[in-house]
Amino acid sequence: MSLVLDAAAQDLLFREARTANTFTDEPVTDEQIQAIYDLIKYGPTAFNQTPLRILLVRSPEARERLVRHMTEGNRPKTAIAPLVAILSADSEFHEELPQLLPHFPQAKDAFYAQRPVRERSALLNGALQAAYFILGVRAAGLAAGPMSGFDSVGVQKEFLDADHTPLMVVNIGRPGENAWFERSPRLDIDAVVTTV
Amino acid sequence: MSLVLDAAAQDLLFREARTANTFTDEPVTDEQIQAIYDLIKYGPTAFNQTPLRILLVRSPEARERLVRHMTEGNRPKTAIAPLVAILSADSEFHEELPQLLPHFPQAKDAFYAQRPVRERSALLNGALQAAYFILGVRAAGLAAGPMSGFDSVGVQKEFLDADHTPLMVVNIGRPGENAWFERSPRLDIDAVVTTV
Repeated sequence: MSLVLDAAAQDLLFREARTANTFTDEPVTDEQIQAIYDLIKYGPTAFNQTPLRILLVRSPEARERLVRHMTEGNRPKTAIAPLVAILSADSEFHEELPQLLPHFPQAKDAFYAQRPVRERSALLNGALQAAYFILGVRAAGLAAGPMSGFDSVGVQKEFLDADHTPLMVVNIGRPGENAWFERSPRLDIDAVVTTV
Repeated sequence: MSLVLDAAAQDLLFREARTANTFTDEPVTDEQIQAIYDLIKYGPTAFNQTPLRILLVRSPEARERLVRHMTEGNRPKTAIAPLVAILSADSEFHEELPQLLPHFPQAKDAFYAQRPVRERSALLNGALQAAYFILGVRAAGLAAGPMSGFDSVGVQKEFLDADHTPLMVVNIGRPGENAWFERSPRLDIDAVVTTV
């Protein structure tokens, strides 16, 4: 056994965890979100940047506006999930670098003066943080249902601004009946890992 | 306590885990990489795509070629880490979709016919998988040292091809003496999470 992580944690985060398509009506509390954030905030990023932004869609009115921008297949589950979060990447993350990297405050201007560089970095590091968030939701014993099927421009206009690019929409809650499809296959290691 | 994940696992993956800058000379084996991959391959992506590619730099000759493309501050640790991996995103991941998504093989052509769409998707989903990989390395009791400081075009030309965009270079091994800097601050939840 090459892994140190205990089997229950492996199952909770990876092996048994699944993208849920149905949910019970048990609410997801702000305390749970706080606990998830307090865990995943430690996940590494380049220069300790924090481009990820999490918008919790709690009001029925906001939920309705969001559902309209989802692709048809994603609408029913987005409408009934106990909580839905819009994850986005903030292209102006560099403004926080002097605070986040006190031993190297020059990073802000040395590396991130140009907007296209920031946009790529926000996308890449925001996605790293989105993965930490998905696993954090699972660490709280909840199922995450990350979705890319939505009108990105529409969601950005409706809920965000020009500096915040949507990464994904995530349904969060306890899995309900028939919550998942059969597990799809994965690539063999030989298709992914090579040695030089 | 809102988290279900046990405290030891929280520490191993997030709270106590750190980006290592020095390493012992204990080798990282192919068996460990296999165990890491067999865990993280279950991490969710859009349409079950698998754009992440992992190139293990094992030969001294390849290591030397890689070190030349690292920024100066990253060279010493990249030279001495027991194992170094180049993570990249494959823009032609859609070719595998019929195999990975047997219940919806049309996804390949319906969503990913255009190269710019694939490139963005490979970057975003490859970054999700890179985050799973970093946590998988930690799950094996090893320290990961992910780095963005390298000549991306140079690494791509030297080790990859036009379809594979470097995401990061990761040093892997057991932490050595004085392996880390003091932990940098994190943003308060109020700067990251908002509710609508």
